[in-house]
Amino acid sequence: MSVVRIGILGAGRIGKVHAENITRFVKGVKIVGIADPLIDRETTEWAKGLGIEIVTKDSMRLIDDPEVDAIMVCSSTDTHADFIMAAANAKKHVFCEKPIDLSVLKGKEAIETARRKGVKLQLGFNRRFDHNFRRIRELVEDGSIGDVQLIKITSRDPAPPSAAYAAVSGGIFLDMTIHDFDMARYQAGSEVVSVDAHGAVLIDPEIGEAGDVDTAIVTLVFENGALGVIDNSRKAVYGYDQRVEVFGSKGCAVAANDQPNRVTLFDGESVSQDKPLYFFLERYKDAFVDEIAAFVEAIRTDGDVPVDGTDGLEAMVIALAAGKSLKEGRRVTISEMKKELGL
Amino acid sequence: MSVVRIGILGAGRIGKVHAENITRFVKGVKIVGIADPLIDRETTEWAKGLGIEIVTKDSMRLIDDPEVDAIMVCSSTDTHADFIMAAANAKKHVFCEKPIDLSVLKGKEAIETARRKGVKLQLGFNRRFDHNFRRIRELVEDGSIGDVQLIKITSRDPAPPSAAYAAVSGGIFLDMTIHDFDMARYQAGSEVVSVDAHGAVLIDPEIGEAGDVDTAIVTLVFENGALGVIDNSRKAVYGYDQRVEVFGSKGCAVAANDQPNRVTLFDGESVSQDKPLYFFLERYKDAFVDEIAAFVEAIRTDGDVPVDGTDGLEAMVIALAAGKSLKEGRRVTISEMKKELGL
Amino acid sequence: MSVVRIGILGAGRIGKVHAENITRFVKGVKIVGIADPLIDRETTEWAKGLGIEIVTKDSMRLIDDPEVDAIMVCSSTDTHADFIMAAANAKKHVFCEKPIDLSVLKGKEAIETARRKGVKLQLGFNRRFDHNFRRIRELVEDGSIGDVQLIKITSRDPAPPSAAYAAVSGGIFLDMTIHDFDMARYQAGSEVVSVDAHGAVLIDPEIGEAGDVDTAIVTLVFENGALGVIDNSRKAVYGYDQRVEVFGSKGCAVAANDQPNRVTLFDGESVSQDKPLYFFLERYKDAFVDEIAAFVEAIRTDGDVPVDGTDGLEAMVIALAAGKSLKEGRRVTISEMKKELGL
Amino acid sequence: MSVVRIGILGAGRIGKVHAENITRFVKGVKIVGIADPLIDRETTEWAKGLGIEIVTKDSMRLIDDPEVDAIMVCSSTDTHADFIMAAANAKKHVFCEKPIDLSVLKGKEAIETARRKGVKLQLGFNRRFDHNFRRIRELVEDGSIGDVQLIKITSRDPAPPSAAYAAVSGGIFLDMTIHDFDMARYQAGSEVVSVDAHGAVLIDPEIGEAGDVDTAIVTLVFENGALGVIDNSRKAVYGYDQRVEVFGSKGCAVAANDQPNRVTLFDGESVSQDKPLYFFLERYKDAFVDEIAAFVEAIRTDGDVPVDGTDGLEAMVIALAAGKSLKEGRRVTISEMKKELGL
Repeated sequence: MSVVRIGILGAGRIGKVHAENITRFVKGVKIVGIADPLIDRETTEWAKGLGIEIVTKDSMRLIDDPEVDAIMVCSSTDTHADFIMAAANAKKHVFCEKPIDLSVLKGKEAIETARRKGVKLQLGFNRRFDHNFRRIRELVEDGSIGDVQLIKITSRDPAPPSAAYAAVSGGIFLDMTIHDFDMARYQAGSEVVSVDAHGAVLIDPEIGEAGDVDTAIVTLVFENGALGVIDNSRKAVYGYDQRVEVFGSKGCAVAANDQPNRVTLFDGESVSQDKPLYFFLERYKDAFVDEIAAFVEAIRTDGDVPVDGTDGLEAMVIALAAGKSLKEGRRVTISEMKKELGL
Repeated sequence: MSVVRIGILGAGRIGKVHAENITRFVKGVKIVGIADPLIDRETTEWAKGLGIEIVTKDSMRLIDDPEVDAIMVCSSTDTHADFIMAAANAKKHVFCEKPIDLSVLKGKEAIETARRKGVKLQLGFNRRFDHNFRRIRELVEDGSIGDVQLIKITSRDPAPPSAAYAAVSGGIFLDMTIHDFDMARYQAGSEVVSVDAHGAVLIDPEIGEAGDVDTAIVTLVFENGALGVIDNSRKAVYGYDQRVEVFGSKGCAVAANDQPNRVTLFDGESVSQDKPLYFFLERYKDAFVDEIAAFVEAIRTDGDVPVDGTDGLEAMVIALAAGKSLKEGRRVTISEMKKELGL
Repeated sequence: MSVVRIGILGAGRIGKVHAENITRFVKGVKIVGIADPLIDRETTEWAKGLGIEIVTKDSMRLIDDPEVDAIMVCSSTDTHADFIMAAANAKKHVFCEKPIDLSVLKGKEAIETARRKGVKLQLGFNRRFDHNFRRIRELVEDGSIGDVQLIKITSRDPAPPSAAYAAVSGGIFLDMTIHDFDMARYQAGSEVVSVDAHGAVLIDPEIGEAGDVDTAIVTLVFENGALGVIDNSRKAVYGYDQRVEVFGSKGCAVAANDQPNRVTLFDGESVSQDKPLYFFLERYKDAFVDEIAAFVEAIRTDGDVPVDGTDGLEAMVIALAAGKSLKEGRRVTISEMKKELGL
Repeated sequence: MSVVRIGILGAGRIGKVHAENITRFVKGVKIVGIADPLIDRETTEWAKGLGIEIVTKDSMRLIDDPEVDAIMVCSSTDTHADFIMAAANAKKHVFCEKPIDLSVLKGKEAIETARRKGVKLQLGFNRRFDHNFRRIRELVEDGSIGDVQLIKITSRDPAPPSAAYAAVSGGIFLDMTIHDFDMARYQAGSEVVSVDAHGAVLIDPEIGEAGDVDTAIVTLVFENGALGVIDNSRKAVYGYDQRVEVFGSKGCAVAANDQPNRVTLFDGESVSQDKPLYFFLERYKDAFVDEIAAFVEAIRTDGDVPVDGTDGLEAMVIALAAGKSLKEGRRVTISEMKKELGL
């Protein structure tokens, strides 16, 4: 397969980001079409500008197209598993945005369908492709850090979502921390055994009224005995705060935030630099490209995808366990959570 | 009072460190004598070299000496409260190493005695005087960080204590994390409401056999709604790892480790710097001096001591609650702990 | 003009870099064709892969093409001025790689031709578009640094060129330092009055045998009274060392090197990070894109180009003056040099 | 010799700094007395407070005292050589502040006298004892940097001296840059062959009227072929800027400025830290102690002093050559300068 032909489902923000990245940066790929039930004239023109020939309201038009090799699921979360299954049944490889679905059972079914049909299924945990976090993982893998003992993840957004969004997002753990749960599994190279979540409403009372928290600390215990801790805030006034630290028997690797430049100003007041990159589109710009390049490479070489459906499911279960822990004020084991979910 | 005359109880490591610091760096103080039941010839000569006139096995010799204004309690922990009370009854001000006693009830009694007798009682939480952590506190106090929302403390020793020491130390929370509990209270400017401790034995199995852990993550909830998290390890191969981060509505202050110099070497392999300062004697060198200077200043000006007996007691209760949380695998409230302790 | 149509002269390394960058990253541009007398099959296929329709050995084929709006001169230095003039006479805008020509007089003639014909002429001083150096310039322009007093430029290559290349390159000042001379003028916002160059052969004796130096320090005096200093080396084993510092009455701005990630590893040996980005293709990746985007924008809006022909000529005169200074062991004024050159 | 007994000549700022440092930090030393023709009541009380018994207007009183082992010359520059010779003749070791004298010939005579009399003579180039610069020198000596090729020294004061002081100081090169000339020789491990100085008056016109400059760049050529450059300013608004960089065949070592703490504040405006330490008393606090400790150690072990009279003389000759270079607008060789000086 010289060129991987892609159909994109969903022309919202992330669908557009992927489409533009693929067009500009990913070699050996062609976007055949994009589908969105709400497609409008502006989006149609944007698609034409990128050289995308098919613009349709009908997702199945792309899924069933014999000229399409792979489907990217960028639609609303409640449609994820259905689209994965439809694509798998049509023998199309699938790249799916996180989370894998609103329903873990449907997510599990989608994973099994993909496996049965022999198509690749990659989840959109883009942070694994971040230059900093990937470098830390390399240091773990090459033994520089020794046995992993502590994992610390700082993950703070620059600004809270609207209360309306928060209400439908499934809560901070499913919407935001799920990336950190995946990062924790990725860095630990081990599964999570238990979760203990603390939360607070310190930023926006409306988030609290919607039953969610905006500030959280989550402690994880891993199968290999290591401990992990994640701290979240919905509002870091200085920008997107995305740091990872892995501590082990031979050392400790710490990733600082990216900044737009490496200039330091010494003046009469202080020694200062520019703030970190503002948000995920800036910080994970290259990671968004690299995850697609890895997906395409896996298809072309018939290799393994770097983040698979199970990764998507596990992160989701941890997020649900964190929610339960917060609600009940106690530690929740993953096995308990899975049992409750019928997994 | 032009010169504050001090008697030191205990000529062990910390007693000697204080004696040398006072002699060299603290103005307006005179060490009248030092007492230790195990005093030997070498220590006697060391004391003479510092110009300390009285070297005795009898602590009461100093406590009762009318030429002594203040007593520094650097003896073994089980004697702390008794010496505080004896000194207070003799109308001497007291500086006491942490923890305030092995028994919280005796600690409480000592605090009350000091208050009743109108003498000052300062606890040896030296890290409050660290240039980095004090600077963070200033930024909290001057409003630069806004409302405090998250406090993160990294506290890792370069090498574990002997299993023998670990056995009598009261466990990691009373021996090591107690400093971090005080730091958390200091930075938060608020009391701890609940504690949730996770621990693991990842470094030395003998520590586990002695019933203790060598790796821990402790989550705190504060009265003002803020959350805190402390991570501990008994063995950071790169040296003493002492960092504090305070995050709030207006910003975030992060203290990095001190290093012996500011030189960076760029070579064919990497960009490198020297490791952090090795351990507490190096890292808190100036802090050990400054805490005594502050004690002396409080005496001379009849002002408040910066860390009082209650600070010592509160940190100890948190440490005990952490131990209980670890043992029982659940969150423990401070009020529950105090009730259990009869406070 | 909705799309700027470009013809590229020269399919060597830099011509290819520009072609790929334009295709992937610059909006509103189309590469109509590429010309190179030595064009081979491999290059032809590469060009087709980028969608470039015309691949020719005849530069005039592109210069005379009515479908071409602008010419990029990426050919050998001795052809620069001739191509600028040919393009200008054909009413095409020109982007020309540095230096403007081997001959300053021809360079001057080319500038005048472009001016007379009313076409834009931009020189390829890509470093002005570097995120770090541009940020420093912003700090100068917004007054953060006050009056500029000292400019320091560190510019070291990771590996020396072959002696053969060095022999035809015109020497270190024309080949390498010319970028730094432009940077100095850019940051100072003032013209150079005199040059004083010291040089040494410390890396490769063959460079010395070829009559060149591989290590240099050049001091500049600016019209506004500021002083500047550039240090060069042909071999920094740790990679491309590109730093700029501007010091003034209100402060000092310092640009550090870019590194591939922001990870720090603390281990038993040291505190280390990855080496700086290796060489100019990595370090100035975005700058190469941004300079073309600025050129295209200037054409589209009929605005000024950010680096014009005079900038190219001035940098070249400074380089020649530096060579003369090195040879004669004395300070050389720019006015003296210009007189000698017949400018 | 168990205790080295010292007499201090000069009770000005630096004499007092040394006296206080010795009293508090240097073991095995006793200050017998201090002499100053302008001694007043306040100074006398200060000396008594330090336990200094002899306070006199008569320098010879200390030089001739059989109870004195070593003399520290902290008096005005024009008296340096005379006091060195008087002390040497009285068989006293000498520590002398820089420069060695106003007259190089007298300086040379003093060195010869000390040598003939077999007493040690150390010059007060305290920066060699700075933790950062000493670390760089270690990296040079242990081969980490390979062959030294470039040395860069940034040396900027936080505030200019009064014009009155500037007038009698001998000019910026003798007063300020002399420390940098010594640092250059120390790091290079090689003698200076030629000097080329550029200067400007950019800060205070009165300094210009007094015939001096306040901003300078000085280029050095070393015997081993390496090049060096020093930049000076009398006014860095952000504090004392003292950095050294040594570049060689195997790498590059860079010393950043010391700051009062390692705290970084991220807020809505920027990422900031506190300014560098203000001036030499803060930055070189420990270096002032360590140079005396090294002097005392050399006496006690009859070893070599780390900075000797010749170091003082060489730095002075370079400073004079720099002055000549600035005045005549050309490079000046050290051999030419020495010939002119009659050395």
